[in-house]
Amino acid sequence: MKFAPLQNDRMIKALLRLPTDTTPVWIMRQAGRYLPEYREIRKKAGGFLDLCKNKELACEVTLQPLRRFDLDAAILFSDILTIPDAMGLGLYFSEGDGPKFERPVRCERDVDQLGVPDPSETLRYVTDAVTLIRQELNGKVPLIGFSGSPWTLATYTVEGGSSKDYRYVKGMLYENPAAMHRLLDKLAQSVVLYLNAQIEAGAQAVMIFDTWGGVLSPEAYLEFSLKYMQQIVSQLKRNHDGQRIPVTLFTKGGAQWIEATADTGCDAIGLDWTININEARQRVGNKVALQGNLDPCTLYALPDTIRTAVKKILADFGSGPGHVFNLGHGIHPSINPDHLKVVVDTVHEYGYKIRQ
Amino acid sequence: MKFAPLQNDRMIKALLRLPTDTTPVWIMRQAGRYLPEYREIRKKAGGFLDLCKNKELACEVTLQPLRRFDLDAAILFSDILTIPDAMGLGLYFSEGDGPKFERPVRCERDVDQLGVPDPSETLRYVTDAVTLIRQELNGKVPLIGFSGSPWTLATYTVEGGSSKDYRYVKGMLYENPAAMHRLLDKLAQSVVLYLNAQIEAGAQAVMIFDTWGGVLSPEAYLEFSLKYMQQIVSQLKRNHDGQRIPVTLFTKGGAQWIEATADTGCDAIGLDWTININEARQRVGNKVALQGNLDPCTLYALPDTIRTAVKKILADFGSGPGHVFNLGHGIHPSINPDHLKVVVDTVHEYGYKIRQ
Repeated sequence: MKFAPLQNDRMIKALLRLPTDTTPVWIMRQAGRYLPEYREIRKKAGGFLDLCKNKELACEVTLQPLRRFDLDAAILFSDILTIPDAMGLGLYFSEGDGPKFERPVRCERDVDQLGVPDPSETLRYVTDAVTLIRQELNGKVPLIGFSGSPWTLATYTVEGGSSKDYRYVKGMLYENPAAMHRLLDKLAQSVVLYLNAQIEAGAQAVMIFDTWGGVLSPEAYLEFSLKYMQQIVSQLKRNHDGQRIPVTLFTKGGAQWIEATADTGCDAIGLDWTININEARQRVGNKVALQGNLDPCTLYALPDTIRTAVKKILADFGSGPGHVFNLGHGIHPSINPDHLKVVVDTVHEYGYKIRQ
Repeated sequence: MKFAPLQNDRMIKALLRLPTDTTPVWIMRQAGRYLPEYREIRKKAGGFLDLCKNKELACEVTLQPLRRFDLDAAILFSDILTIPDAMGLGLYFSEGDGPKFERPVRCERDVDQLGVPDPSETLRYVTDAVTLIRQELNGKVPLIGFSGSPWTLATYTVEGGSSKDYRYVKGMLYENPAAMHRLLDKLAQSVVLYLNAQIEAGAQAVMIFDTWGGVLSPEAYLEFSLKYMQQIVSQLKRNHDGQRIPVTLFTKGGAQWIEATADTGCDAIGLDWTININEARQRVGNKVALQGNLDPCTLYALPDTIRTAVKKILADFGSGPGHVFNLGHGIHPSINPDHLKVVVDTVHEYGYKIRQ
């Protein structure tokens, strides 16, 4: 498959810690419910999963935010739970309750019966969408592929949905660590195949979302979450089609452990908003780029407040290379899209200024 | 009011960083739903608030865990939201949804109309319960009083209940920081009066729970949460009835900021389980005692696993003074009470051993 040459490579360069004219910016969940045009398509598609599994619609919603905002990257529209779904656990979405699995993995036998999905079969809808989006982008900006982290996938897989107390998954972690390791190893193998398939299909950067790593103790985080992300990082195709493919790791609530994360061999760390980005930069030195980290709630404020908050993060990071601006977590569904425009434009304007 | 002399002062001593024969232990939510005898009384009382507001029943459930376990402290059975309830916001509990307020504080005018409750009037039911519990304890172990932190009270007050996105309270924080500061100042004044009233009524130590400080950025945490806890610490009666009254601050998700917390003048910091207690001890030095910090989910495991995890925390802290053992958050409702007995007994046995 031949794709058009990349015109805007700011984000790729920043992830690789190369100089750029200004700070690149994209936004977690930039294709999402805060956009009326997204809600329109979503209604047409039926459920959320129907939207993920229809490549034309997934492509359309991926491109929507790029028409409104001067974003430096597109991110595949998909869900973090496609892998356990492909394992046959029966993903569904219940209104208000979030994702659920019909057949959660609760015991050792359940773990041993799980297979590693072949992405060219059960996850073909994802790679097909990646290729279509890449074609439609036509070189405008790079396309980011992604997956949930093994630990985060394990939480949903074992709990059968979202959890407040992580009763079952942590119960297994503490009581039967060997079974938990076997589960995480299968999930890690699956993520490697899945992300490499996305890279082959056209993803120009990949990101691993460890949404629930922050609920672990430091020892458990290193042993049950970071170890498997490191295993994945070491097995990804880091070069494809003559281009370097940067890998970003994001652990929500993981600010305490960024030194260890920087040692995994990843290219960049995604930061939530609970750490000052200057402190983060001091702590990880020149090992990795940083992505982040505006509190998503800042976007409930008025434009002047938003501008000040964006500038502060850019100034805190400084004018050196290696910063990709983002929120510290996904944009909330009730945010006014005009406020996101303020963020994106301020990043570019002020990011240019601090480099002069 | 004359109370019986304190027989077991291990916890008070440890909070003041004085040597003890073994490590003291109490458990957040030790009077709670995991105990069948609690569920019995709760059913009899009607709602949760009815139980808090009936001093005999509140006393009974406070004492229940002490009959089962060799705990080194009792903690007043109450709710963190008594202050906004006394402000007239109409606290109620809806099944499954947690605490709610009938009249949330949404704008500057709402803030300005709030009064600072006189604890001898609207919060009398709390201080009456404190005195009764202290009498019934008869010097066995010390009684801990507590309050929510101003920021945590503000989150419920402004959101009108629990929140996933903190839309309204952070909206006010970012857009109208002056109004947020006025709200926090009123809440801080209220907490000072409330905790001092608990001390006068018989509380021998006090703790401030900042359950939601961890959802803030570092700058916002210092300005909107820690600042007000410090204000409270400086205005509490630290000596009463010839005894020093230790103050503990606990911010869930606040492990990144313990150096600043240690500088508030508090006696102890409560740690959640996302930080190694040895690292915490290194970082705060000899300024404060530390309370914590077993992952509450460890109690889903079997006794041998629990013992190993408890011993690890005791060994990590070491044999020096200033450790009060606790979970990193409240005990979950579905925990087997026998597993808590394993925790308590292991703390005492192993805590004694490491001091030899």
